[in-house]
Amino acid sequence: MPADHARVEPAIAAIIALREQGASVHCITNSVAQNFTANVLLACGASPSMTASHEEAPQFTERLDALLINLGTLDAERRAAIRDCAGVAARRGIPVVLDPVKCDLSPPRLAFAAGLLSQGNMILKANQAEARLLAEAPAALRVVTGSVDEISAPTGERGAVSNGHPLMDRTVAMGCALGALVAALAVRAQTPFDGALAALLWFGVAGEIAAERASGPGGFASGFLDALYATSPETIRKQAGIA
Amino acid sequence: MPADHARVEPAIAAIIALREQGASVHCITNSVAQNFTANVLLACGASPSMTASHEEAPQFTERLDALLINLGTLDAERRAAIRDCAGVAARRGIPVVLDPVKCDLSPPRLAFAAGLLSQGNMILKANQAEARLLAEAPAALRVVTGSVDEISAPTGERGAVSNGHPLMDRTVAMGCALGALVAALAVRAQTPFDGALAALLWFGVAGEIAAERASGPGGFASGFLDALYATSPETIRKQAGIA
Amino acid sequence: MPADHARVEPAIAAIIALREQGASVHCITNSVAQNFTANVLLACGASPSMTASHEEAPQFTERLDALLINLGTLDAERRAAIRDCAGVAARRGIPVVLDPVKCDLSPPRLAFAAGLLSQGNMILKANQAEARLLAEAPAALRVVTGSVDEISAPTGERGAVSNGHPLMDRTVAMGCALGALVAALAVRAQTPFDGALAALLWFGVAGEIAAERASGPGGFASGFLDALYATSPETIRKQAGIA
Repeated sequence: MPADHARVEPAIAAIIALREQGASVHCITNSVAQNFTANVLLACGASPSMTASHEEAPQFTERLDALLINLGTLDAERRAAIRDCAGVAARRGIPVVLDPVKCDLSPPRLAFAAGLLSQGNMILKANQAEARLLAEAPAALRVVTGSVDEISAPTGERGAVSNGHPLMDRTVAMGCALGALVAALAVRAQTPFDGALAALLWFGVAGEIAAERASGPGGFASGFLDALYATSPETIRKQAGIA
Repeated sequence: MPADHARVEPAIAAIIALREQGASVHCITNSVAQNFTANVLLACGASPSMTASHEEAPQFTERLDALLINLGTLDAERRAAIRDCAGVAARRGIPVVLDPVKCDLSPPRLAFAAGLLSQGNMILKANQAEARLLAEAPAALRVVTGSVDEISAPTGERGAVSNGHPLMDRTVAMGCALGALVAALAVRAQTPFDGALAALLWFGVAGEIAAERASGPGGFASGFLDALYATSPETIRKQAGIA
Repeated sequence: MPADHARVEPAIAAIIALREQGASVHCITNSVAQNFTANVLLACGASPSMTASHEEAPQFTERLDALLINLGTLDAERRAAIRDCAGVAARRGIPVVLDPVKCDLSPPRLAFAAGLLSQGNMILKANQAEARLLAEAPAALRVVTGSVDEISAPTGERGAVSNGHPLMDRTVAMGCALGALVAALAVRAQTPFDGALAALLWFGVAGEIAAERASGPGGFASGFLDALYATSPETIRKQAGIA
């Protein structure tokens, strides 16, 4: 699929900037995804911080560049930490990404997600079923994953990325880690839109490269981290599928 | 070891059915095993759901096909969630697998495990030391792992599987993930016995295949997921070691 | 770098002893590092036990050979478990390793770490920023990681290891897992100093070997476990970089 170069270049610039300058992301994420999410951030040049403790997470959020809020394995401790960290992030004006994992299966998660979004200015990263239920909630940007991933801004700006591979659905925490990368790139991109486009392209192209070399989801997960780490801007540019 | 084909075929059928139709398993499992367990389920065609939160787990159990209860890293939150989810599963009549991890080292875990089994109709998946301490407790099926794995039903039906490889003991959460696969296959097998036999054969043969290609436990863990994903029914049938 | 053989041999002896005799380590560690830490211990011949539950951890500590206390993802449950387990370990006289993860970013963690060390006789494993803040606290041994890792004993004995590879910083939980290995080797070494030297050499050489074969952090993490598992004493001796 031929790339829309005018759109791809600012995304590529954000990838290069993250690799060169780094970005620290505090992640309140589910216990299943913590390890893989941290490894994805490290592979991309970012620095993870992962405590979900109510007592500690706000202090880390005070010092870091961005915040990821992921609602998987939500419990009382995480809920309290999320509320406080969202407050710190809003006051500091750092990028916040919300991933309302499986809110379509859990009414309390849905209500909690809607409440967070209503505080304004968060980037929503969700799959189609989740995003549909939060269609009325305000968001600084909507990143909706699927066979084609879509980005839409309140300004009406839209983008779509067709990269990726089915083995990505056979690796747990792949979508959760994407949310963390959207947060890291929002720090280094000119606009949140460019950052989200960069994250989708980087993930999708790395998935395609890893799938070519893998014989199953185990080798794929490991090769995916290698591809995030090593794939050149030139390759991402060449394989970019802007739909 | 020549396979007892009359027994192997229903197990193979369950493996094929899981790959084709899937099965969703809610897993209340220890924090060490969550990621690997979810990846094993995904590699086998099943869908994991992993929250251990007291507040949320029962809602997920209401909608899913089977329940895994694993007593590793047991805490107050998990204990409450397990009690409620076991009640939901019993009411709905879905398969429940109990893995009383290290109950031989922890008297409270042993008492908790015995209490759960006394509610009736759970599949017990344990190693020999754990199973011995729960010998008097009722179970819908007993799956006892060791150098030879053994299955026994209250009807007197018995089976034994000799597949596997020592590197499986060098990979954390291998036994925990097996419990989740027993739960998934119980959904798609004609009987819990067939499902447990399928899980042991699939795991054991995948372990042998991965070990052939690995030079240590890192490559083994990744190759094991690949082998679960890719190994054909024909290969499982040919390598099946029914003792 | 030529190895100081008089120092290397007792370390090599500890590595061989751990592989032959094993050692069980109870690890109260952060949720991000639990899986990788357990896999590192298994690859090295040790046995992990990982519950962080306040109710259970002290019972496990009663029966095991060493204790790791890692302050990542510190919460109320972990804090209570750590206090009780430290008490059990002190009474039993088993080795205790304290890793005050990111205490330079969290004043409560720093105070908690200082309080633990003041009870005496713990091995401190920290990076330079963390160690600097705990310079006044007593420790049975100080193991400070960096581009050159340094060990110092209250007796004035000092050692330094220059092995390792930058990809180790791109793999989450690498330093956390090192702390667990220091604990395991303290059980089998003649002195805590020999055990810490053994852990640094084993880790550093395995990192160098894995990096040679890897094309990124995914393959590196898996190859690192393989190298821990398979690298011969002869290779560790030959590559040892005693600075």
